[in-house]
Amino acid sequence: MEHAKPLPTYLVQRYHGWKATTWEENRSWYRRLAEEGQRPRAMVISCCDSRVHVTSIFGADQGEFFIHRNVANLVPPYEPDGEPHGTSAALEFAVTALKVAHVIIVGHSYCGGVKGCHDMCSGTAPALEEKTSFVGRWMDILRPGYERIKDLPEGERLTALEKQAVLVSLENLMTFPFVRSAVEAGEISLHGLWNDIGEGGLEQFDPASGRFVAI
Amino acid sequence: MEHAKPLPTYLVQRYHGWKATTWEENRSWYRRLAEEGQRPRAMVISCCDSRVHVTSIFGADQGEFFIHRNVANLVPPYEPDGEPHGTSAALEFAVTALKVAHVIIVGHSYCGGVKGCHDMCSGTAPALEEKTSFVGRWMDILRPGYERIKDLPEGERLTALEKQAVLVSLENLMTFPFVRSAVEAGEISLHGLWNDIGEGGLEQFDPASGRFVAI
Amino acid sequence: MEHAKPLPTYLVQRYHGWKATTWEENRSWYRRLAEEGQRPRAMVISCCDSRVHVTSIFGADQGEFFIHRNVANLVPPYEPDGEPHGTSAALEFAVTALKVAHVIIVGHSYCGGVKGCHDMCSGTAPALEEKTSFVGRWMDILRPGYERIKDLPEGERLTALEKQAVLVSLENLMTFPFVRSAVEAGEISLHGLWNDIGEGGLEQFDPASGRFVAI
Amino acid sequence: MEHAKPLPTYLVQRYHGWKATTWEENRSWYRRLAEEGQRPRAMVISCCDSRVHVTSIFGADQGEFFIHRNVANLVPPYEPDGEPHGTSAALEFAVTALKVAHVIIVGHSYCGGVKGCHDMCSGTAPALEEKTSFVGRWMDILRPGYERIKDLPEGERLTALEKQAVLVSLENLMTFPFVRSAVEAGEISLHGLWNDIGEGGLEQFDPASGRFVAI
Repeated sequence: MEHAKPLPTYLVQRYHGWKATTWEENRSWYRRLAEEGQRPRAMVISCCDSRVHVTSIFGADQGEFFIHRNVANLVPPYEPDGEPHGTSAALEFAVTALKVAHVIIVGHSYCGGVKGCHDMCSGTAPALEEKTSFVGRWMDILRPGYERIKDLPEGERLTALEKQAVLVSLENLMTFPFVRSAVEAGEISLHGLWNDIGEGGLEQFDPASGRFVAI
Repeated sequence: MEHAKPLPTYLVQRYHGWKATTWEENRSWYRRLAEEGQRPRAMVISCCDSRVHVTSIFGADQGEFFIHRNVANLVPPYEPDGEPHGTSAALEFAVTALKVAHVIIVGHSYCGGVKGCHDMCSGTAPALEEKTSFVGRWMDILRPGYERIKDLPEGERLTALEKQAVLVSLENLMTFPFVRSAVEAGEISLHGLWNDIGEGGLEQFDPASGRFVAI
Repeated sequence: MEHAKPLPTYLVQRYHGWKATTWEENRSWYRRLAEEGQRPRAMVISCCDSRVHVTSIFGADQGEFFIHRNVANLVPPYEPDGEPHGTSAALEFAVTALKVAHVIIVGHSYCGGVKGCHDMCSGTAPALEEKTSFVGRWMDILRPGYERIKDLPEGERLTALEKQAVLVSLENLMTFPFVRSAVEAGEISLHGLWNDIGEGGLEQFDPASGRFVAI
Repeated sequence: MEHAKPLPTYLVQRYHGWKATTWEENRSWYRRLAEEGQRPRAMVISCCDSRVHVTSIFGADQGEFFIHRNVANLVPPYEPDGEPHGTSAALEFAVTALKVAHVIIVGHSYCGGVKGCHDMCSGTAPALEEKTSFVGRWMDILRPGYERIKDLPEGERLTALEKQAVLVSLENLMTFPFVRSAVEAGEISLHGLWNDIGEGGLEQFDPASGRFVAI
């Protein structure tokens, strides 16, 4: 790979700072994690967005969360077609190999992927409809969610669609046989959250009311 | 989604603690991030593994890194076939919409996904060869890397294959036209890293020597 | 003590979160507890095991329980030999100085200390018999309990011995003159519980039937 | 044990509330903890005092901390004399069987045990000097700490002695061969904290300055 470049100096310096402090002060924990392997309590599926780091929000240290991050925190439906499915692979590894006790979907405000889905479905972003658009084809997963919110007033649609990204993912989770059987056996629990970036808010889906409510 | 459960109390409490401290102390920054949008400098592709959090290693705050995490930090080859590809969608969003300046692949020691690939390719994990194994089909991406290291002494193979996961991903990155053109125009640079969990080590791929060297 | 290290950052952050929320919201209570001293209603003797926190099970707040935790929730017999006895000191402080109204012994399933005792007494863990084994010498306290359960079918022995750890402790409690006189004066009551970690069960010893029964 | 009494109703009710909510919502985690065993990251040695619950201060859930609580959070010196030593047994179990990465000593303000030690050593509590006083014989462990602070102004002595309880314990920890070798091998790290109950403060011992400093 002749194109690889040296890491920018500011990151090299920060790494050395981390090594001399955080790693040095916790070396016994890092070594134990290396030797004994990880045993995370939860899998978190959140967005790639640089503004949402669940390790910060939940004060989680190394070893607590197995974290998959993709555009718009989406879980596709179960489709064992022999093709590579990164999200399904992460889910299978977490549930069947690591045996996590929780799967937590974390959506958020101002999600660029969700906005793309909205624009595509409402006809204002035709480029995303093209076969070659990876973002468009990925956001197809959220089309069933768009159908449910498309008649809302315009000002409410994006937030509603961000929350649909959580709900559609929760629904798709249950199409995986190994998730469904674990849920039904009480071995795993599912959770849906939505984070308001600007206000630091956190809402969770409440099945009784069918709404997201502040925690 | 009738299956969604309330978030465990200890996470609710930790969230309220974060809100009252980290968020409160940085509210102007969070609000600006919300209103103006994110503008991350780099995209990081790392593993879901709970022991590798690049935000910690690089002291990265909200807004710095657009982070995609999947099993074994893999990038599949460019394949615009109209199917959903989560990694390719994240990459397209980062490079064409966010215009990040760096794409950094971060591999690591004791990678469960890489070990699965090794066992599958060496014939000791036939279940991973089945069409229905999402982990197996995902790790197929790394088969070319296995071919290159399969004749090494047994004790060296896993680490070598972890590093191949970085190299194969770097190679596959260049099969994406929007990446290749950005690299050739000097608009983006690619980086390959490997983290030693137990020792806190960080090595980067050096094209001149063809090796990973400590930074 | 040149060996003391800084607290890991994630705990520092969680502490600041606690300070800004739980403490802040209850500052008047914390200050009153500081100024007027504690006045706990009960002493709880439970295991060090990280899976059994009686404050959680009983929704207990600061000030409610005086809690002694040791391996296998054991109370040794009264032995005023001038040597340091941590459990006896905690008991004396709770009963004679704090004048608690209850002493509650809480045993639990999958107790590592009890398993060690079982293996030692049944001859499969000779290392625990050595004079230098602190765990072995501590678990000697439970030997009379082992004698009572050793002829049970193998599959029932560990749970039975966990319950014996509660009963032997209750018996030993009564060898302390200040406990016996307080019990006989009706100033204190003793309770024996056993917690099933996996099922969240709680059983209490019922003297009438001589059995532990679900509460 | 004919003396055992039924648990007070308010605790029975709280238990049922916990079972129906906290346990129910986390049953998958409790079952996993039961089946796979505990793997706590840290051992905490804190006081029995009802006002100091480290699980609250550090937002720790089931499984995180192996907790030994005794009067005045003391660790006695290494003394493998074949007698039962509860603190030493807990320490041995945590370090050699559970292989915790941290041992954290947590002292606190208004400690009744420390005050007893002060009064005993300064001659105003002769009853504590008697051979039959379990509290007195336990607090003997802190006598070396009293020697170091006895010439301080009266108003400073109790707090100083509370901090000595942390320091003497840290020193005694290092007299255990299995602790010393683990510290020297970088497998475990030791930490000394002091909690101000009324103000919610937390200080840690800083070896460089020889003082406790706010974190």
